[in-house]
Amino acid sequence: MNILNRLHGPGDLQKLSQTDLKQLSCEIRETITKTVSENGGHLASNLGVVELTLALHRVFPLPEDKIVWDVGHQAYTHKMLTGRRDRIGTIRKKGGLSGYPSIKESPFDAFGAGHASTSISAALGIAQAKRLKGEKGHTIAVIGDGALTGGLAYEGLNNAGRFKGNFIVILNDNTMSISRNVGSIAKYLTHIRTRPGYLRLKSHMETAVDRIPLVGKPLRRGISHAKSSVKRLVYTSTLFEDFGFAYYGPLDGHDIKGLMEALESAKTAERPVLLHVITKKGKGYSFAERNPGKYHGVSKFDVKAGVPLSEEDTFSSVTGRCLCDFAERDPHICAITAAMAEGTGLTDFACRFPERFFDVGIAEEHAVTFSAGLAAGGMLPVCTLYSTFLQRGYDQIIHDAALQNLRMVFAVDRAGIVGEDGETHQGIFDASFLNAIPNISVYSPYSYSELREALETALYSSKGVAVVRYPRGKEPFLPKEIQKICKEYWLYGENSASIAIITYGRLFSAACEAVHLLDAEGIKARVIKLNRIKPIAREAVSNICTASKVFFFEEGIENGGIGEHLGSLLLRRHFTGTYFLKGIQGFVPHASMEEALHSLGLDAQGMKKTIEAECKK
Amino acid sequence: MNILNRLHGPGDLQKLSQTDLKQLSCEIRETITKTVSENGGHLASNLGVVELTLALHRVFPLPEDKIVWDVGHQAYTHKMLTGRRDRIGTIRKKGGLSGYPSIKESPFDAFGAGHASTSISAALGIAQAKRLKGEKGHTIAVIGDGALTGGLAYEGLNNAGRFKGNFIVILNDNTMSISRNVGSIAKYLTHIRTRPGYLRLKSHMETAVDRIPLVGKPLRRGISHAKSSVKRLVYTSTLFEDFGFAYYGPLDGHDIKGLMEALESAKTAERPVLLHVITKKGKGYSFAERNPGKYHGVSKFDVKAGVPLSEEDTFSSVTGRCLCDFAERDPHICAITAAMAEGTGLTDFACRFPERFFDVGIAEEHAVTFSAGLAAGGMLPVCTLYSTFLQRGYDQIIHDAALQNLRMVFAVDRAGIVGEDGETHQGIFDASFLNAIPNISVYSPYSYSELREALETALYSSKGVAVVRYPRGKEPFLPKEIQKICKEYWLYGENSASIAIITYGRLFSAACEAVHLLDAEGIKARVIKLNRIKPIAREAVSNICTASKVFFFEEGIENGGIGEHLGSLLLRRHFTGTYFLKGIQGFVPHASMEEALHSLGLDAQGMKKTIEAECKK
Repeated sequence: MNILNRLHGPGDLQKLSQTDLKQLSCEIRETITKTVSENGGHLASNLGVVELTLALHRVFPLPEDKIVWDVGHQAYTHKMLTGRRDRIGTIRKKGGLSGYPSIKESPFDAFGAGHASTSISAALGIAQAKRLKGEKGHTIAVIGDGALTGGLAYEGLNNAGRFKGNFIVILNDNTMSISRNVGSIAKYLTHIRTRPGYLRLKSHMETAVDRIPLVGKPLRRGISHAKSSVKRLVYTSTLFEDFGFAYYGPLDGHDIKGLMEALESAKTAERPVLLHVITKKGKGYSFAERNPGKYHGVSKFDVKAGVPLSEEDTFSSVTGRCLCDFAERDPHICAITAAMAEGTGLTDFACRFPERFFDVGIAEEHAVTFSAGLAAGGMLPVCTLYSTFLQRGYDQIIHDAALQNLRMVFAVDRAGIVGEDGETHQGIFDASFLNAIPNISVYSPYSYSELREALETALYSSKGVAVVRYPRGKEPFLPKEIQKICKEYWLYGENSASIAIITYGRLFSAACEAVHLLDAEGIKARVIKLNRIKPIAREAVSNICTASKVFFFEEGIENGGIGEHLGSLLLRRHFTGTYFLKGIQGFVPHASMEEALHSLGLDAQGMKKTIEAECKK
Repeated sequence: MNILNRLHGPGDLQKLSQTDLKQLSCEIRETITKTVSENGGHLASNLGVVELTLALHRVFPLPEDKIVWDVGHQAYTHKMLTGRRDRIGTIRKKGGLSGYPSIKESPFDAFGAGHASTSISAALGIAQAKRLKGEKGHTIAVIGDGALTGGLAYEGLNNAGRFKGNFIVILNDNTMSISRNVGSIAKYLTHIRTRPGYLRLKSHMETAVDRIPLVGKPLRRGISHAKSSVKRLVYTSTLFEDFGFAYYGPLDGHDIKGLMEALESAKTAERPVLLHVITKKGKGYSFAERNPGKYHGVSKFDVKAGVPLSEEDTFSSVTGRCLCDFAERDPHICAITAAMAEGTGLTDFACRFPERFFDVGIAEEHAVTFSAGLAAGGMLPVCTLYSTFLQRGYDQIIHDAALQNLRMVFAVDRAGIVGEDGETHQGIFDASFLNAIPNISVYSPYSYSELREALETALYSSKGVAVVRYPRGKEPFLPKEIQKICKEYWLYGENSASIAIITYGRLFSAACEAVHLLDAEGIKARVIKLNRIKPIAREAVSNICTASKVFFFEEGIENGGIGEHLGSLLLRRHFTGTYFLKGIQGFVPHASMEEALHSLGLDAQGMKKTIEAECKK
């Protein structure tokens, strides 16, 4: 790490030779692989953009120039080059660097990210602000071909194309979304990637660019406005030109010198430019190159041996298996995912029922409305999205699904705290925003067996839209002697206890543990677990009303959540006991799931402390 | 109305000659103009698609074939042709036909609409369902060029392009969004609309199609896959072909015979087809043709004299005027709208500050993230959207605005009941879904003067994201003797009254009236008006706690709303009185604003009745 260790800020990069830069790329790759193997994180996407990031930092002085990273799962190199090298080992750990760019973390991070397809819109806003304030400097959005399938990216392109001045979009094309990229845009990119012009440019970038008639020279003096038919057909992308961009590429994304030359040229254009850069996801780590989807986001792993295939079940894998079982019996069931077939456990479904499996790309709005269309057409769609990405489809859930009272199911993965991905990815809003929508039932299982039951209920015993939401990872400790009062709620502990702990989902396990901790202190409590959190069953409310002290613990945002709703139901019943609600009050930073739940007071110890303190008042 | 009155279902249309169809177009136009002049509604968009609708119904037998209308503000002709002719006079009235397609209203409405850009996704779902179920019939999405600027439409195109079978998208290109269409796509459509091929096709559609080399014949035998450079450059749209569609057009959208021929051809293609149809918004009514933006959606008007220019203020016009005043003094202020410059009162701002005005097209996600970019760049953006469309930007508000704690303002127009547009357009969710998001302050003024103060507070005295939400239309009756306790809450009536009515926004006026109605019955009540509904001021809660009976009336969804949140705050204070919450429980159908509020029990009479009934218990 001779070179990397000498870099303290982006300025230090300017002194390096091309040979040094190549050496630096190797050192960065080694550091990234080691770091991700120790901390977990995004591997393949970060390995793919090392040279691109170096070239960007050589050509554009930050923070005067602004780079907006789309999704942000490729910014590790950027972080190391902007004064955070010595803290890279803390990435994704509690109190350490975030796994994504963050304006709170560094002035070199122009705009935070985590969700896909925002970069063009955000960068355009920054560029307009610069223009209006008369500030100097360039603005660059770096977006992957996967994120380009999101509608927001298109809205951004449609507006950016008419920007009056330099504005650079770098299309980082690695032919992958998180899984393999899908849709017509992906096909189109393959088309322009593989046409005759490409290889020549790739192999002889440095010398060839001047020799290509109609491209080389115009590029040198800014990018040409001419549109001769030959150029249009062979060397340019009509799609991006139709959007108002000068198109240039494709370029070899691992050739630093070539990239720097192209960026220098792009800088001089007085109009929006799209630079199409081809990178290899996972570049430099053989396991990741061979299987970039698997190495997109990973847990800790052994660098020499590669990532071990986890055979253990998770809520995601169990969902996938249940859906296969149901689909086997019922030809109406379809599964829809937005570029998350692996993450949501649907790879087996995709193989077994290819005709009824739809990966729509990173396009959650479409995923919801398309599912609603399937439902209107008489199928039984299960739209499987992460909680945090379901936010993208909020209007579509209201307007296309619930308003029409269609029979469809949402399987909401990673509901609640997700851990190391941090504040952009926490699934803490779905319980609240779904709670507001009429014609919806929401189930929140805590175990695999309850998950299966909930999915079956959602599919066959619900009206309108049914949602099953479940946490990231594995099922928690399963308490014995649960009293399954009815389908809608369960009880743990003695029903006569005057203290009632109310909760739902995975927290049930911690609540049961808290009962034992309290019992050791001589405090008797029972747990009422809401299986269906919307609507809350009348019987559950009646039971709760018999307690004199009620504590609601919620792994979700407190405002507008299930706890506040239950409170209003208790008020309506003229409940006269005390009601204590503890949910989540703000954005939750990265840390392990256990650490985060502990910090929030939502583990067994935290529950015990809260209850003890209130009882002593 | 000789022909129109003879039509009872779509089948009757088959018997008519071309001459009859032309006559029928005139009769339909007359009926639409008369109906809209009496009921208010969408005029220009409906007048533009009369011939297109007739051609569609001639070629595609419904309900076996499915037509999905995008936005749905152009479906009046479709309604008249599908058994609803005799009820067209009830459109948008309480209990009458909806102004939009609705699956609840008719089996001929394949999918409901109201919000833009959903049609391709929904139709694709329906088409896939047909394929999977082995059902016959075609699926057609009809989308305007305005709706094509929405990201969801793009996500739909990107996925529909790989559909294996016939799937038809009709691009109804009237060069308008609601206002003039914007962005690169609009420019691109102008380009293909005006190239040499067009006029020929337009004038001689019937005979010319066979004569055009490389287009005519392939079209007859399904649409060609060949891509010769000549064809590519002159006769086809590479943009839509890049999306995987066979492109055909542009066609004259007022030539029924030509449209029928083209649709018959499109039907035979075994792949997705995009038919580009040029229509004139407002066709046949001179006032609307001359000013289609103004005649897009209108109130009642005099057919002979045209729509009178309303000079009266509304919350929208006052917002526009305030923003002009602020922008005059402060060069950082920008205004952003999503194709709603007129509706949100920003036309004057657009003229006076063109550099700081951004109409981004129907693209709410982009509107929010772009505004966040402006804020990150140091400007002070005011993102002005209707409440119902703000739902589209929900994830962006969380992820790009609030999470980064950016200083920016949302001006949320038409918050609450909107009246005749009905359930797809009610602004009843924003208070609830904004309530859930950290780092946000929300103000809900009830009068013009409070609106101005709220905007000033949001711009200059708030932290993070500030929202000002206000109702559709005019300010209500303004009670005298309001006690302006502090910036966050006001009082009306005697503070010693044991009954407290809590509300916010426009309902304040009704609540004050209710105080007088109750007084006449010997019941003393006071009103506490929350000016800032998030966070609720501690002082307001303290005041409320002094009442023994608290009634919260909310012009918004009850679940997760401000009333439930206040309830939880009262519980935390160990409030022992009674708490009665009345918000909105489900989707609210079309009716006038007054009728809707009355039905919901949210007018003065309703409040009085509720309180009286509770007091008698």
